[in-house]
Amino acid sequence: MGTQKPNLPKGTRDFGPEKMVKRNFIFDAIKGTFQKFGFQPLETPAIENLSVLTGKYGDEGDQLLFKILNSGDFLSKTSPEDLESGSRTLLPKISEKGMKYDLTVPFARYVVMNQHNITFPFKRYQIQPVWRADRPQKGRYREFYQCDADVIGTDSLICESEIILMIKEVFGKLGIQKYDIKINNRKILGAIANYIGVPGKISDFCVAIDKLDKIGLEGVLKELEKRSFPKESLKKLGPIINFSGSNEEKISFLGKLISEEQEGISEIKQIFGFLQSFGTDAEHVDFDPTLARGLSYYTGTIFEVKVKDVSIGSVSGGGRYDDLTGIFGLPGVSGVGFSFGVDRIYDVMEELDLFPKDNLISTKVLIANFGADSEKHALTTLKKLRDTEIKSEIYPDAVKLKKQLNYADKKAIPFVIMIGEDEIKNGSFTLKDMQKGQQERLDLEALLNKLKD
Amino acid sequence: MGTQKPNLPKGTRDFGPEKMVKRNFIFDAIKGTFQKFGFQPLETPAIENLSVLTGKYGDEGDQLLFKILNSGDFLSKTSPEDLESGSRTLLPKISEKGMKYDLTVPFARYVVMNQHNITFPFKRYQIQPVWRADRPQKGRYREFYQCDADVIGTDSLICESEIILMIKEVFGKLGIQKYDIKINNRKILGAIANYIGVPGKISDFCVAIDKLDKIGLEGVLKELEKRSFPKESLKKLGPIINFSGSNEEKISFLGKLISEEQEGISEIKQIFGFLQSFGTDAEHVDFDPTLARGLSYYTGTIFEVKVKDVSIGSVSGGGRYDDLTGIFGLPGVSGVGFSFGVDRIYDVMEELDLFPKDNLISTKVLIANFGADSEKHALTTLKKLRDTEIKSEIYPDAVKLKKQLNYADKKAIPFVIMIGEDEIKNGSFTLKDMQKGQQERLDLEALLNKLKD
Repeated sequence: MGTQKPNLPKGTRDFGPEKMVKRNFIFDAIKGTFQKFGFQPLETPAIENLSVLTGKYGDEGDQLLFKILNSGDFLSKTSPEDLESGSRTLLPKISEKGMKYDLTVPFARYVVMNQHNITFPFKRYQIQPVWRADRPQKGRYREFYQCDADVIGTDSLICESEIILMIKEVFGKLGIQKYDIKINNRKILGAIANYIGVPGKISDFCVAIDKLDKIGLEGVLKELEKRSFPKESLKKLGPIINFSGSNEEKISFLGKLISEEQEGISEIKQIFGFLQSFGTDAEHVDFDPTLARGLSYYTGTIFEVKVKDVSIGSVSGGGRYDDLTGIFGLPGVSGVGFSFGVDRIYDVMEELDLFPKDNLISTKVLIANFGADSEKHALTTLKKLRDTEIKSEIYPDAVKLKKQLNYADKKAIPFVIMIGEDEIKNGSFTLKDMQKGQQERLDLEALLNKLKD
Repeated sequence: MGTQKPNLPKGTRDFGPEKMVKRNFIFDAIKGTFQKFGFQPLETPAIENLSVLTGKYGDEGDQLLFKILNSGDFLSKTSPEDLESGSRTLLPKISEKGMKYDLTVPFARYVVMNQHNITFPFKRYQIQPVWRADRPQKGRYREFYQCDADVIGTDSLICESEIILMIKEVFGKLGIQKYDIKINNRKILGAIANYIGVPGKISDFCVAIDKLDKIGLEGVLKELEKRSFPKESLKKLGPIINFSGSNEEKISFLGKLISEEQEGISEIKQIFGFLQSFGTDAEHVDFDPTLARGLSYYTGTIFEVKVKDVSIGSVSGGGRYDDLTGIFGLPGVSGVGFSFGVDRIYDVMEELDLFPKDNLISTKVLIANFGADSEKHALTTLKKLRDTEIKSEIYPDAVKLKKQLNYADKKAIPFVIMIGEDEIKNGSFTLKDMQKGQQERLDLEALLNKLKD
């Protein structure tokens, strides 16, 4: 075997120690919050049968699934005609499995397969990578983590209000202060479509209005015109999109306008009511009747979170669905879920310089290595440090001190212990503070106390 | 789309909440130990280029790689001849990527690609799933986690002694008490091969002696005979395999026997010396000159850990390698690493009933839901519980209490709070202890104190 220059597949990434520690800071904030709210962890395999995945994400999604070649002689089930028939026809003969595209469909599969053992309502969170054969670009990867939490088996709107609380709690832990949690309801969008006289065109309506942020009111109206919405309808829509005011004002305005279909409005009101019972003000929460969300399985409340002052898309989103598990044979189970976009949150935190400097330390102290004589004392000390739960290590070789200090510096280890002849004689330790550049002589007890958290 | 009965690919598993919590208990013990010893986290993608993976695991390994079909029209780069030429020839034209088979090769790739940014010695741990298209059987899966820690860029034997300490620490945390850490050195195996007069047949020798546990001395000798080892050699080998005694006795016996090649023996002695400096007795550590380990890249110390009284193979293993990164263009970098087999450790802990009962609680308390009036108080209380970092939830619907208590029971929630008319009037709370079946009336302060950890 010759030497080869290795590289990474397009759209995939290594996460080295520095990035891992920062990512884990985000994951821990999210996980801690999910757990505090009673959500339990679930993991599903990276690999799913294509029969489970295909047809769930639209034609485009099917294209973006990573397919796995059947193992062994993958051509054994193919006929000569199959081979000539092109990729599409050949595919199902040579590939039965794919990599998961999101966490929602595998969750639905899990719920259906385990419906008799699950106690509903089932609150689960799931933090795992997913894969999409998308064209890689800035901020879009072929392998990336999703962080989902869902409650399934209840239509209580308390769940919606708790999602808002969880978003607030996570952002609080991360130090993100300026953000909007936009909230709307698919039923309101339906009612608006009815009100403006296009009851059959709800999905066209949602697709167009979803672009409001990017193309503005003019653009949305133009797009709807192209989709042959009558002039009359567009005239009625303008004031709805243009209306601004507090949450209460928007609710009241819309409530009067679509007075015959109050269900969506009533749900929004209830959610704000629950927030009040929780003693949480509605800061950050913005009822936005133009929020649509792309995914088609939402049937009730929808959410989307954007951080202000950064040009990064939504960092969290979700909604209520009435029939996620129907496709797998378990109809009529309502649920609500949401997801954090960790890659984007990471970028936001880098841009706003929000990662804490101190909490991310891995090793607390390095013991310098001065060769065999000192080593014995060093190892004894190391044992005591670790028995005191102090993250610590010894430089494994007796190289020049400068090199060892450089190692501590690069690894952001804040302290270095030196045990030379003098120290061995006195039973003392010289502790160097790498940030301050100062050093002091300490006995064992003082040393351990100083380094304990 | 019709209804379909979903299923899981062969050899893959879902990890529901109960299993996840237990698995996380193991992962946390391992992670915490790695970090305490100065190891830093690394994650590499699930997907690697096949050029990185192929040829690293032998022919059998190449067969067991999961290959990913090129996305889009995967036949576009193929000629009619390719299609007729069979799976092996067609494969490289339709698949450029595969799923990672272990954590070691991607680690080597990472080190080579980032050699100018890494400060050596580099201590990294990596806990991620790997995939093998193996025939699934009891305890063998197609998707499973590996937990690796390696130090690369030093040949200091302190690293070996710290691996022993880490194994002891992890097993201590997990409550596993009866186990053997077998240790040997490839150089000793080489010296034995020389001593018995088969210097060119070290790998044959290792393969055969690796089976000692399964087929006994007779079997090993028979196998070596088949591999045309001379009678003379087998005669000399018998006493070595049969020798029993303390570590010191074995070291002394072998040291005299292979007196011309002391390097391996000297390394073993140094490792025991370091353990002594650490103040750790050599309990659990067993120098076993017949330990061989399958993988061929080991060149120095090798380890293997088995738990006693259970019929489960080795639960941890590893060794020193001199040239892991050579294949990717960075030769002569020595390192040493080891790995925990989490699936097997899980089975061991189930078999020995070692999972703690209390620590694995997810939600601490459930607030029962008695409908709108009580709900308001319930949500206010819930907020206070969570502000006190108590993991808590409310049953989202006002269903029969029995159903709610059943939910708490199934989810192993130890406490349930009930806020009825009386409690609302008094500002008090009824707390039900689910295990004892008792309930008491408490004010808010007493409630929070009782539920705090």
